[in-house]
Amino acid sequence: SCWAALGSAMPDPNYREYLIKTEKSQQTGGRVLLTNAEEQLSEVLQKMKQEEMESSEFPPAMHFFKAKPLINHSSLFNLLRKMPKGGALHVHDFALVDVEWLVKNVTYRQHCYVCFTDDQSVRFIFSSHQPKPIPHCSEWILLETVRAKIDNTTDLDNGLISNLTLYTDNPEAAYPNQDVVWKRFEETFLAAWGLVTYAPVFKDYFFEGLKRFNADNVMYLELRALLPQTYELNGTINDRFWTLRAYQEVLTQFVAEHSDFFGARVIFTANRGINASQLKEVIEEAVKLQREFPEIMAGFDLVGREDTGRPLWYFKEPLSLPEQLGVSLPYFFHAGETDTQGTDVDQNILDALLFNTSRIGHGFALVRHPTTKALSRKMGVAVEVCPISNQVLKLVSDLRDHPAAVLMSEGHPLVISSDDPAIFGASGLSYDFYEAFVGIAGLTSGAGTLKELAINSIRYSSLSPQQKEEALSIWQKKWDKFVVENLP
Amino acid sequence: SCWAALGSAMPDPNYREYLIKTEKSQQTGGRVLLTNAEEQLSEVLQKMKQEEMESSEFPPAMHFFKAKPLINHSSLFNLLRKMPKGGALHVHDFALVDVEWLVKNVTYRQHCYVCFTDDQSVRFIFSSHQPKPIPHCSEWILLETVRAKIDNTTDLDNGLISNLTLYTDNPEAAYPNQDVVWKRFEETFLAAWGLVTYAPVFKDYFFEGLKRFNADNVMYLELRALLPQTYELNGTINDRFWTLRAYQEVLTQFVAEHSDFFGARVIFTANRGINASQLKEVIEEAVKLQREFPEIMAGFDLVGREDTGRPLWYFKEPLSLPEQLGVSLPYFFHAGETDTQGTDVDQNILDALLFNTSRIGHGFALVRHPTTKALSRKMGVAVEVCPISNQVLKLVSDLRDHPAAVLMSEGHPLVISSDDPAIFGASGLSYDFYEAFVGIAGLTSGAGTLKELAINSIRYSSLSPQQKEEALSIWQKKWDKFVVENLP
Ligand SMILES: [Zn+2]
Ligand SMILES: [Zn+2]
Repeated sequence: SCWAALGSAMPDPNYREYLIKTEKSQQTGGRVLLTNAEEQLSEVLQKMKQEEMESSEFPPAMHFFKAKPLINHSSLFNLLRKMPKGGALHVHDFALVDVEWLVKNVTYRQHCYVCFTDDQSVRFIFSSHQPKPIPHCSEWILLETVRAKIDNTTDLDNGLISNLTLYTDNPEAAYPNQDVVWKRFEETFLAAWGLVTYAPVFKDYFFEGLKRFNADNVMYLELRALLPQTYELNGTINDRFWTLRAYQEVLTQFVAEHSDFFGARVIFTANRGINASQLKEVIEEAVKLQREFPEIMAGFDLVGREDTGRPLWYFKEPLSLPEQLGVSLPYFFHAGETDTQGTDVDQNILDALLFNTSRIGHGFALVRHPTTKALSRKMGVAVEVCPISNQVLKLVSDLRDHPAAVLMSEGHPLVISSDDPAIFGASGLSYDFYEAFVGIAGLTSGAGTLKELAINSIRYSSLSPQQKEEALSIWQKKWDKFVVENLP
Repeated sequence: SCWAALGSAMPDPNYREYLIKTEKSQQTGGRVLLTNAEEQLSEVLQKMKQEEMESSEFPPAMHFFKAKPLINHSSLFNLLRKMPKGGALHVHDFALVDVEWLVKNVTYRQHCYVCFTDDQSVRFIFSSHQPKPIPHCSEWILLETVRAKIDNTTDLDNGLISNLTLYTDNPEAAYPNQDVVWKRFEETFLAAWGLVTYAPVFKDYFFEGLKRFNADNVMYLELRALLPQTYELNGTINDRFWTLRAYQEVLTQFVAEHSDFFGARVIFTANRGINASQLKEVIEEAVKLQREFPEIMAGFDLVGREDTGRPLWYFKEPLSLPEQLGVSLPYFFHAGETDTQGTDVDQNILDALLFNTSRIGHGFALVRHPTTKALSRKMGVAVEVCPISNQVLKLVSDLRDHPAAVLMSEGHPLVISSDDPAIFGASGLSYDFYEAFVGIAGLTSGAGTLKELAINSIRYSSLSPQQKEEALSIWQKKWDKFVVENLP
């Protein structure tokens, strides 16, 4: 054609190709060297991803509660379930196990009482005798007695289940804004509280949690844990030291039974609703726990809704205490889990970094803070990206718009995690990996991205350099097996 | 307190302050020097913004169709309406004037026929005799006759209005996904077509459009224009030269009547649905028009939905034609109006830059392309940000998540525009300025941001350096007056 002869006025296709490759090399996984087998797997993955993108209903563009049935049928999702994903570095103590287990197993145990609150929630308690009533709740009813009286317990159980999770058919109608969804979110924890802090259940719950993550091919956990007091049937209260020891015992037992599970560590968390002098006491206790349980205890964090809570800078004095005392208390702050810009709360990411945070929980607001973003990169502080959590808690609706798409395009250090999978109707880590890989990472990302995300979860963990090396070598074997087993 | 004595372990507050200031100085308007009066205005603006942010219903977090009544009552919005905003650089020819005017004025003119399509839309035509039927539409009905027969024309007129706009009470239900909303969006243009391409209406429409933007304190327009053939009552067809001359005549008349309106230029647009050889012919015509009407003609663009259209690189040969011929045809490409990542379409922004685009229309995807973003900054190519358009066409739901928040935090060159205000139930430029300033720019941005945005709209326009200087000096006088008149 006549065009060929006139080609010189066109942009140089080689320069174009060079720019596209440069950009691709910047993204998460863009500089990972792939074996031939990994290259082949990558092509399979990208083809699968393209098919999902071309479908009329693209799950990452939908609310997770509506997308979940589609995701369950996705062959890409089922591949990601099999993938060794490394560690889950941002999950909370009481959101590890599907709430069905709480109702179908725990509430069916002996001595389980329930009461119904004024605002249509429930509370539970285990007790050897009729417990004393609590404010704003009905009389305590022994579940065993109720269930014996009714023919069909399905409605009752489903009612209990719905109080323990945000999962619902029509999330847009049920949760019109952040205030409503956060209120319900906090209610689910209150509802579960009496179940999960019952000492025998507490241990079983953690064991069940480990089982679920292990079955989802997650080999390591870092648990944000409130380390609550637990109670026995006779009303005896166990302190925080009991709780940490319980974690350690259960973990030891679990690893003994599942030799390829690497382990777990605990990040002690307090609610940001407390004041500075209360935090001072908590920090002092955290320092003690850190000294007493250096193996399982990774550090400290503040939790709860940032938008309505106190900013980190308000706590500057108690947070400076460990360094003043010359002791180590690594921080793992939730920061930037917000849509608001330019407020005091919106400085939390910067302050987390100034307090030498080891990672940033969520960091949803980071991309709007170029100076802070550069600092986090320079310091090698990874962002814990929890896509489904951010969507359910209404920070973002279409996950393709998640700011982690920007971070991933720039190869910013980050890991994928699931925050509170049980509350969101998810489980383990694979649903969030699916959203991140299919919805956030873009079509050009393949096996290299998955590999870097998994390696990141070990690299940016709180493990010692030696433990990291060990964990990486275990992961590498699993990964190589996964690649070979899933070639076309 | 004991803390004071131990202060040394805390992060240095001066360093913190320095980082916060550094970041603030990077944002759009962050390096603008403000007069004392502007500083005072800035404080007023920020107080107003804070109040809006603290309200239980925050308009930028809501769909514009639901937010509009709240915005109308916002004193900040009413201040922004009075503000001299400079130019609107991204608006389309047939979306300038509220659709009520089309129905209440244009369809009440003599000889206006309507027909009803199989898929519940409408078509119009002016004709001195009964027009020939068109496929998939009812017989042509003379509106004058219909209206004479019915007592109350309100329902009929409201029905016509609803066919010309996307505005509706429950947008989430009406437009469940991008496919649906784009189909309805394209339908509104087809519905308006027979009205606005009727030669007498064509001129009146543009005049009315200029009136609305001028009343909204916009002094300059760059119009994406299809330059359609127009028709007379007797069926005579006028060509593109007539159309461009019509724009020039109407503009001359308008400026004569409104001496403080600076002017308008036209960016000739073709739909990306055509093929490469069709585009070759269009480009050849564009080159002719550019030579013939250098004053009013600014350049060329491709329009229509990117996700389902052909990527720019497909058109590389016809787009290279002007440079091959050694003639100038500035490009102003729509590019990156997409949520998808890593597809061919997602390379449009890069290709727009490689074809030396003067600006980027939307550039919604730019933040996910670090190399391309750096190139656009280096080349000084501004992004035309149209917040309401992106929300209504379902690229983003909560406008605080709009990627322009990232661009603004980095001080990336950008302008605010309104795309198709009439179709979105908006008007002029102020609604989009409100969304950008209140929802996207963050609490710390004040008068400096508004000033830079207004100046950008002249700096990044297609005007000559001399015209820019002239426009800027007119704008500056208006701005100074605005500042003084709105001090506390
Ligand atoms: Zn969390
Ligand atoms: Zn447009």
